[in-house]
Amino acid sequence: MVNYKKYLREDINNFKEYFIDNPENMIKLDAMEYPVDKSLRDVIKSLNINEKEILLNRYPESHSQELEKIILDYFGLNSNFGVNFGNGSDELIQNICLAFSKKGNNVMVPSPSFSMYEKIISTVNLKYIPEYLNEDFDIKIDQMIKNISKYKPAIIFLACPNNPTSNLWDKDKIIQIIESSESIVVIDEAYVDFCESSYIDLIEKYENLVILRTFSKIGFAGLRLGFMISNKEISSIINKIRLPFNINTVSLKIIINIFENFSIIKKNCQNIISLREKLYSDLSELRNIKVLKSSTNFLIFKTLNKSSDEIYKLLKDSNILIKNLNNNSNLKNFLRVTVGTEEENNSFVSTLSKYL
Amino acid sequence: MVNYKKYLREDINNFKEYFIDNPENMIKLDAMEYPVDKSLRDVIKSLNINEKEILLNRYPESHSQELEKIILDYFGLNSNFGVNFGNGSDELIQNICLAFSKKGNNVMVPSPSFSMYEKIISTVNLKYIPEYLNEDFDIKIDQMIKNISKYKPAIIFLACPNNPTSNLWDKDKIIQIIESSESIVVIDEAYVDFCESSYIDLIEKYENLVILRTFSKIGFAGLRLGFMISNKEISSIINKIRLPFNINTVSLKIIINIFENFSIIKKNCQNIISLREKLYSDLSELRNIKVLKSSTNFLIFKTLNKSSDEIYKLLKDSNILIKNLNNNSNLKNFLRVTVGTEEENNSFVSTLSKYL
Repeated sequence: MVNYKKYLREDINNFKEYFIDNPENMIKLDAMEYPVDKSLRDVIKSLNINEKEILLNRYPESHSQELEKIILDYFGLNSNFGVNFGNGSDELIQNICLAFSKKGNNVMVPSPSFSMYEKIISTVNLKYIPEYLNEDFDIKIDQMIKNISKYKPAIIFLACPNNPTSNLWDKDKIIQIIESSESIVVIDEAYVDFCESSYIDLIEKYENLVILRTFSKIGFAGLRLGFMISNKEISSIINKIRLPFNINTVSLKIIINIFENFSIIKKNCQNIISLREKLYSDLSELRNIKVLKSSTNFLIFKTLNKSSDEIYKLLKDSNILIKNLNNNSNLKNFLRVTVGTEEENNSFVSTLSKYL
Repeated sequence: MVNYKKYLREDINNFKEYFIDNPENMIKLDAMEYPVDKSLRDVIKSLNINEKEILLNRYPESHSQELEKIILDYFGLNSNFGVNFGNGSDELIQNICLAFSKKGNNVMVPSPSFSMYEKIISTVNLKYIPEYLNEDFDIKIDQMIKNISKYKPAIIFLACPNNPTSNLWDKDKIIQIIESSESIVVIDEAYVDFCESSYIDLIEKYENLVILRTFSKIGFAGLRLGFMISNKEISSIINKIRLPFNINTVSLKIIINIFENFSIIKKNCQNIISLREKLYSDLSELRNIKVLKSSTNFLIFKTLNKSSDEIYKLLKDSNILIKNLNNNSNLKNFLRVTVGTEEENNSFVSTLSKYL
């Protein structure tokens, strides 16, 4: 008698199917994407890539030593360090968790933070230990140090800057956490290009530090490429865990060529920073919301006289898609808006102002 | 004191870093790739894809209902079934295993078979139960049925046809296995286009059956796209486990368009079948090897007077890369050669014949 449910994990129903709005012709400010559309055609042309050299019938390189070298050189790191690639940094988070997926292991994450940490930690049967932030979304450092000593986490994930709270925790707190941990600390710098305070320099001092980066926020979310920098030993462990051909040929080729033009990307990010400051200042002038300073390519704000659910819906009905954070009990009535183009930001502000 | 090794899985050293030869200018017959090179440029042109519509700055669709519909229609299946996508079928194998990753669960796989099953089963902390094939690489069905009842596997993986043994197990045995299993049976049809005996028709009869397919052997290994067909309930479970944006934008767009031209791919596969039969007949005439009939796009043969290690090396020194299977104790002195172009196959046969 077939009864496969008996063999499924008991917690399977705690997981949700990830449903994402797929808007047509909306102003899309929900996903921290770079707002100026870049087509495959334009990217290939601008990077001078010979498409005839990209052979789709062949497996991709299993691990591109060329790209590894380019990245280490870019950050001025020597061959004591290794670079791993992931199909998005999600896959790297999963592989790090799998490497430490031993019964009884805890993984500590400030809360609220990037929702995928909790999902992936649970998926690989590790225990998620949230470490609640204070009301300014800052780390309560004394409490966290105490909890590190209590829970002895196998991994600590620190999004620097943090999503969805948009702030950057101070370097001295990050150092205290790294020094308090017996095991590894992963600093996820997905949004670092919008704050220019990278903690990557710490990697030469702390052997238990892992840095995560992604191309998703700076113009290439469609390619799915994240990377991780760590000491050679940790890098080799993650290489043992990963699936052999996890980066497709097209993405690999494009990313290899991007580094030669990284200054253009940096300039684009600078532009987003300017647009963010303008958007912050515009939102600050609106009544009935409280907007927070941001170190990322998005802003969060709290609705004061209406529920965020209502504002979210009104905006959506006006063809503007942002993210409602209200389902997180520590983000009651908070909304998150990605910095768009100047025109998109202006439409958003003027539409929002009508509903407040 | 940093001591992250204490937190690592104890079995981490059993895993190997996947090392793959990266040959330049060799005749590459090691990886079951489609032998006629297809560049990104040619594919995009031949499929009439508008590259301007492929936006790299946006996240890919999380789950393409369009592609799901195309695939269900292609196989004449109704909406009681679901399709899941993977970054290669490797990722689907991992997600299936993760869904059933409950302490004490066993996963049964005929042996020898595709090496990634064992690796992935171990990676997610499940127990790998090999079910040894007989000397003709056929399933010992009575023993297997007995072992299913003994080990009660949560998953049984059946590669049909099987890699690396190249044969296809009879349908009546497959049915007996499905009917004996309390839980799910995954039929991995990676090589089905080279035998034309799909078992997908069984999916309407058996709710515990899952079918895996891939584009890797039929011309698109570089895109990393596998898919899985199952009943809607299993499909929904796998959707809960997977990472949200696992298929990149470029691969998704190309695969959506491929189905309109699938007859060309089928014709290409027919051509590989003809080339395989010719290669089989040529190899059969050589002394000191024994070649096996194949239902795939590769052939395996046993060296009779020299070790396969030696033959492998001699071929490699002559710029021909095939796969040495000798490290598997049940494949002593076996080698695997992918069917190449007519010219490549001829070079291979004439070079091999000199060394036998």
